[in-house]
Amino acid sequence: MSKDKQFVKEITPQAEDFSRWYIDVIKKADLMDYSPVRGCIVFKPDGYELWELCQRELDARFKETGHRNAYFPLFIPESFFQKEKEHVEGFNPELPWVTEAAGEQLEERLAIRPTSETMIGHMYAKWIQSYRDLPVLINQWANVVRWEKRTLPFLRTSEFLWQEGHTAHETEEEARKETLQMLEIYRDFVENFLAIPVIVGQKTPSEKFAGAKDTYSIEAMMKDGRAVQAGTSHYMGTNFAEAFDIKYLDRDNQLQHAFTTSWGVSTRLIGALIMVHGDDRGLNLPPKVAPTQVVMIPIGPAKTRDQVVARTDELFAELKQAGIRVKVDDRSDQSPGWKFNEYEMRGVPVRLELGPRDMEKGQCVLVSRVTGEKRMVQQDQLVEEVQKLLDETQQELYERAKQFMADRFRSVDELDELKAAMEEERGFFLAGWCGSASCEHQVKEEAGATSRNIPFEVTEHKSKCLVCGENAQHTVVFAKAY
Amino acid sequence: MSKDKQFVKEITPQAEDFSRWYIDVIKKADLMDYSPVRGCIVFKPDGYELWELCQRELDARFKETGHRNAYFPLFIPESFFQKEKEHVEGFNPELPWVTEAAGEQLEERLAIRPTSETMIGHMYAKWIQSYRDLPVLINQWANVVRWEKRTLPFLRTSEFLWQEGHTAHETEEEARKETLQMLEIYRDFVENFLAIPVIVGQKTPSEKFAGAKDTYSIEAMMKDGRAVQAGTSHYMGTNFAEAFDIKYLDRDNQLQHAFTTSWGVSTRLIGALIMVHGDDRGLNLPPKVAPTQVVMIPIGPAKTRDQVVARTDELFAELKQAGIRVKVDDRSDQSPGWKFNEYEMRGVPVRLELGPRDMEKGQCVLVSRVTGEKRMVQQDQLVEEVQKLLDETQQELYERAKQFMADRFRSVDELDELKAAMEEERGFFLAGWCGSASCEHQVKEEAGATSRNIPFEVTEHKSKCLVCGENAQHTVVFAKAY
Ligand SMILES: [Zn+2]
Ligand SMILES: [Zn+2]
Repeated sequence: MSKDKQFVKEITPQAEDFSRWYIDVIKKADLMDYSPVRGCIVFKPDGYELWELCQRELDARFKETGHRNAYFPLFIPESFFQKEKEHVEGFNPELPWVTEAAGEQLEERLAIRPTSETMIGHMYAKWIQSYRDLPVLINQWANVVRWEKRTLPFLRTSEFLWQEGHTAHETEEEARKETLQMLEIYRDFVENFLAIPVIVGQKTPSEKFAGAKDTYSIEAMMKDGRAVQAGTSHYMGTNFAEAFDIKYLDRDNQLQHAFTTSWGVSTRLIGALIMVHGDDRGLNLPPKVAPTQVVMIPIGPAKTRDQVVARTDELFAELKQAGIRVKVDDRSDQSPGWKFNEYEMRGVPVRLELGPRDMEKGQCVLVSRVTGEKRMVQQDQLVEEVQKLLDETQQELYERAKQFMADRFRSVDELDELKAAMEEERGFFLAGWCGSASCEHQVKEEAGATSRNIPFEVTEHKSKCLVCGENAQHTVVFAKAY
Repeated sequence: MSKDKQFVKEITPQAEDFSRWYIDVIKKADLMDYSPVRGCIVFKPDGYELWELCQRELDARFKETGHRNAYFPLFIPESFFQKEKEHVEGFNPELPWVTEAAGEQLEERLAIRPTSETMIGHMYAKWIQSYRDLPVLINQWANVVRWEKRTLPFLRTSEFLWQEGHTAHETEEEARKETLQMLEIYRDFVENFLAIPVIVGQKTPSEKFAGAKDTYSIEAMMKDGRAVQAGTSHYMGTNFAEAFDIKYLDRDNQLQHAFTTSWGVSTRLIGALIMVHGDDRGLNLPPKVAPTQVVMIPIGPAKTRDQVVARTDELFAELKQAGIRVKVDDRSDQSPGWKFNEYEMRGVPVRLELGPRDMEKGQCVLVSRVTGEKRMVQQDQLVEEVQKLLDETQQELYERAKQFMADRFRSVDELDELKAAMEEERGFFLAGWCGSASCEHQVKEEAGATSRNIPFEVTEHKSKCLVCGENAQHTVVFAKAY
């Protein structure tokens, strides 16, 4: 038992220091390690597998909607950054440069891609000649680099993993439809797979992506009340096509610029996953994204051990056969109590305990990581019972996160009210906004909150700007963001 | 028909110029494009999908054998290259260096990884403390960079995609077993999934990986008789652990160096796939790795078109339901003849034709890309018939490649004989070798052939060294390699 106590002590309580809690949990759950390169982390197997499961799920959704994957070079010639003025201003401060290779100085410096956007623009200009070549629907899974001064594992690292979709279309209508389709895919994935409720909406002009006409985002609330932008989708209009000369002969034989979109999510989703569901006992993984959904722990005295382990293995085979990600921990050098804590800390949604008395009765015990509830179930109904508990857990985590967000989602009328509220407790704040960049800027300076987005759906339409009191053009969500 | 002729003209015949044939095919089949960065290509969707299918298959085999994926940083500090002398000598001439980032000169230059070996060694030294931490069985899917002077799409590019497995073990025996297990996984994958027969064996000391104790390889023969090293597996002994200080407390509480292995395959497999199976009509894909296994082409006059297309769509649904990767081309602006050529060129293994008379009879026609054979089959047995033809095609491609390799696999006794044979026709040459590096070097200098490996199984044991005539220590395969 002393081991158990020590164990829990190693995780700082959320209420004491949320940032330390986060680092404690990801280190203790073995998701990552710091690397000797500043700002770059190592994704350890338990962390990387979360990304693999996200990839598999998203990739299937991208392919279902007609997208295909491709791969573009890591290096971007310096001249490419001159083509799109806003692009270069957006990224230049963050770029690492290759200046020499194979013992020689390069004639032109090469940036490590912060996105492949410019390279893809260059290639699309070659590939797209006629309306027959459209639409182009391409996605890339890749590593990208943005040299960050202040980093936070998963949420902000100098190198990270992501996907970037880039599409080109004949018409504005089609490109806008694509932009919103991908936003909806992200929303559905984040809400129903990661069990993270989000606010869906449009970015204000000052928060949109450099060069985009319109940027849309999904915004999630962490347990410290801060926001994480969990995915973005951009309608570029013809801005990007003009910068990169992406032109096609239309059905009337006229040369036109293509309408383009881009959209992406990254490994920061892993950070959000941890910060939305985790608690003082550690990780708390929604079953759909949990690498291990059920851990089976045989218990009881040494004399019945072999029998219990043998039965555990049979049940393991049944669960595995049913497609459930299951694991047995039958190590004899760790106590059941230690194991219970260990897998709770690792966020495994369901624990199965099997002891000699359970065996006699043809039963076993399921324990929910989220609620702590124990269920005695019949072994001959195990698959159904486990599936049911996993479904309930997925739903429960979503509902809890939704309730948490609702509790921290407040409406404010004036900047002073926002400042006071932010000081009391962080969260999402709905406020009216006149549309001026200076009012938005003032909110950031004085309350430390940025506009997250203009939600598609709001509970309430605000009529006055929270800063200047003029008529509100939009009702906006403000929050402090990661 | 004029279109068809022109079409075929665009591919240089293999016999005329194999290198031009290769470039013509990969460009025409839309697998890649050159990028504006020297030596780096763009993997277009049809090329990238070949890699995705390889990845999916290999990844499953790695996981079945207990390996897990992780991700390590792209950047390697310069000091890491000093730790392993042979390593630095092996890679230094090929490295690109990041010297500045975010507007500042870096204190220490960062290389773009040529492999993650040194970074992984550094991390393993942290992670491995006790025998309880072993074995460590980790794989990484990543991009790596080696600045190449002479490049060839897929086969040798400055940036390429690969996987690198790195494992650490308590004992030599276990590490050696792992090394050979992974070699066998590669052999099985390349022979049975890519339908490429290989020679399995051990590299000579001068051809082994820098720092390895023993390197094993699988070697495939291209249609021009040159070799491609299709995969390697290295037993590192404790060399690497000594360089990176990977030590553990053993069961007797003694500090020991771990025994390590590494193994990898890369996107050069795509190049091999094309060069082994392709012909003057274009690509020729084994069904298991073909992104499209069956293309369905409705034919016949305009008046029956709607009916035929409707029936095609029904049959499409059946095939898709059965897990077959199938596609319909019902475009009306291209002739059937054009489409036949197009999909032959793209290497789609099976073409299905459906016309009005076939419909009346409840039949359709299957055409094999490899043999050209046409089969009239009953629609109500379509799934079985297609599956059968796909299996036969997979087997036929393997048998053909095997026969080709057998025909070009010769035995030689003396260097002059090898030189004459190489000049006549390239291939694999079995010869005795005394074990001296200088004899091996002389073969390279005079015959332009390197030792590929010492095969595990040979048809014949040679008794004399082909160069010096001394007793042969090994029977070796020599060939000109890509
Ligand atoms: Zn205002
Ligand atoms: Zn000799």
